Amino acid sequence: MREVAVIGIGQVKVDENWSKSLRELAGDAALDALRDSGMEKVDAVYVGNMMSGSANQQQHLGAYIADWIGSRYSEAFKLEAACSSGAASFRTALMAVASGEVESALAVGVEKMTDSPGSEITAQLATAADADWEAGQGLSFVALNALIMRRYMYEHGWKKEHFAPFAVNAHANAMHNPYARFHEPTTIEGYTRAPMIADPINLMDASAIGDGAAAAILIPLETVKGRTTHKLVRVAASAAATDTIAIDQRKDPTWLTAAERSVKKAYSQAGLTPADIDLFELHDAFSIMAALSLEANGFAERGQGPRLAIDGEILPTGRIPIATRGGLKARGHPVGATGMYQLVEVVQQLRGDAFGSQVQNARTGMTQNIGGSGSNIITHILQIAD
Amino acid sequence: MREVAVIGIGQVKVDENWSKSLRELAGDAALDALRDSGMEKVDAVYVGNMMSGSANQQQHLGAYIADWIGSRYSEAFKLEAACSSGAASFRTALMAVASGEVESALAVGVEKMTDSPGSEITAQLATAADADWEAGQGLSFVALNALIMRRYMYEHGWKKEHFAPFAVNAHANAMHNPYARFHEPTTIEGYTRAPMIADPINLMDASAIGDGAAAAILIPLETVKGRTTHKLVRVAASAAATDTIAIDQRKDPTWLTAAERSVKKAYSQAGLTPADIDLFELHDAFSIMAALSLEANGFAERGQGPRLAIDGEILPTGRIPIATRGGLKARGHPVGATGMYQLVEVVQQLRGDAFGSQVQNARTGMTQNIGGSGSNIITHILQIAD
Repeated sequence: MREVAVIGIGQVKVDENWSKSLRELAGDAALDALRDSGMEKVDAVYVGNMMSGSANQQQHLGAYIADWIGSRYSEAFKLEAACSSGAASFRTALMAVASGEVESALAVGVEKMTDSPGSEITAQLATAADADWEAGQGLSFVALNALIMRRYMYEHGWKKEHFAPFAVNAHANAMHNPYARFHEPTTIEGYTRAPMIADPINLMDASAIGDGAAAAILIPLETVKGRTTHKLVRVAASAAATDTIAIDQRKDPTWLTAAERSVKKAYSQAGLTPADIDLFELHDAFSIMAALSLEANGFAERGQGPRLAIDGEILPTGRIPIATRGGLKARGHPVGATGMYQLVEVVQQLRGDAFGSQVQNARTGMTQNIGGSGSNIITHILQIAD
Repeated sequence: MREVAVIGIGQVKVDENWSKSLRELAGDAALDALRDSGMEKVDAVYVGNMMSGSANQQQHLGAYIADWIGSRYSEAFKLEAACSSGAASFRTALMAVASGEVESALAVGVEKMTDSPGSEITAQLATAADADWEAGQGLSFVALNALIMRRYMYEHGWKKEHFAPFAVNAHANAMHNPYARFHEPTTIEGYTRAPMIADPINLMDASAIGDGAAAAILIPLETVKGRTTHKLVRVAASAAATDTIAIDQRKDPTWLTAAERSVKKAYSQAGLTPADIDLFELHDAFSIMAALSLEANGFAERGQGPRLAIDGEILPTGRIPIATRGGLKARGHPVGATGMYQLVEVVQQLRGDAFGSQVQNARTGMTQNIGGSGSNIITHILQIAD
């Protein structure tokens, strides 16, 4: 198996991008990544996307986007794993290059959500839950996460305001990210006064949807030297695991078993432990997911995720910086694109291009993209290659 | 790169399977493949599917199906490439095993189409065309293929009845396939009297949709010996190429450039020529696509595809047998599953399990799955491993 490097990254600002079509959004990010890599085209295009068939009446995004970016005739298809579709496209690109099937691959995540009415998007997001056993009962994703958060607070004695530092950190970091949807800092008071959506989840616990795209170019590590002036970033680990889609079928809804399984494989591949991770772009679709992720990935004891946030350990200067470019909360969560934003942001950190939220001397960064309510979890570890 | 073998196959009958849910269809085929392989579970599950988000209100099929078949915690995601989604799942499984990322993978294609009204399914199928430049103009897939067929007949002087032998062969072969949707032979006269759909395409030129699922288990070739009593089948080649989605943007709408590019790579990988192929499961969604496929893959001169059919060379006893288990025309075309049916059927032929439509001494079989109107084409060559 060949080692693989990330030689180019690109992204567009997460926003209500009504003036750009799906192919323009994906194309802007992909062409940005190609320019960054110094390459003109790629052998393969893997697109991460969840809902283009229903939200944009356009499937078949592989051929659709490959042609648009000047890679007509390239191999191309789409990956879908609900909100972890972006990381699935990166993992597929990695396997394609590692196997020797292709010499270069573009992974691009894209989602265009804000053209449709909110109620329709909520229903389409619910197709990531179990149609028979969850969505059919009227449970939206916010509702599912509210049930988990309520149970977690009950079991571990946390109060609502203890989750505030997750939003405060995300919004503060997004101030330094021109691609983030929000450039509005918030405070503990701002958090506690935010409107309730599904008790106990309020507006500041929940990430915002959006239109966005982010992309990366992968090539064999052995071929990259001398081709770029950027610091060389290699993929040190890639691993995925699933769990039941329906939460009620898990023994413990407050523990992310798939995250634990996925990250154990990743740590083992890379020969690392949690102490070696300089920053962690986790999947803070809801603040409860941030807390659970810190625990399942070995950064906090069970039930103690919020403690890290309260103690400031999740800040760019802390022990395990998270959401360093705004996270899903403040950069925004265009679902099929999110996993690729996380990977692009880690590359920015490792290159030292993260401006005011730069993690000093970052050499190893981890991403974790979650599909459904903890049911499809894909972990990547990127490292500076010496 | 490790060589990969197919150790198990499974499928369900293509039909109006109203009494089975999406997960039951996929599960039946997957469990059938697991039983056939002698294995209990796999490291990874790759699902080929096009329209579950809109037709079944269920996305996230990776986790959904992995859990259902007893592979909870396996890596799992969905591949979409319109009608070539099935072959995309097989190719992803191949890359995953070849790269060493996993030791076993299940590729399963599934589609459940007949619960929705026909008009709705036609609109959902049109999302495989270009939403802005084709579907938005009111062009359905039958209409697009009718335009291609009309032009082809004009350029090469063929009459409508010259396409009849494609349907006659497909329906005759399906008589020997218990998993085929139709067990009704047809004749030249039956073809010419079939109702017109979109002139010149009549009911006997067009494949039928359906509900179906087909699956295969892939493992490293080096680990397979002694684990199965079946003849050993290895993947000799896997290659994909795209073209513009919109047909009007191609120089020549009557030539499948992506097929030619895809198969050239495949022949090169396997060290083979068209003369070495014992049978060819091509993508006869419409009879014009069968003719164009025979030409682009090197079995007929340009414009001479129908000649092979007229001369009986596409029969199981002919020079290049096609649709040997009924093809899309008579086995049926549950879109995201079709590519996997083709692969399963070639394995059956290589094992000698094709009953009355067995190709004698078949040692090398090829499949080609087409997404859109020739815009995403994935070719595989399977061979008996000695």
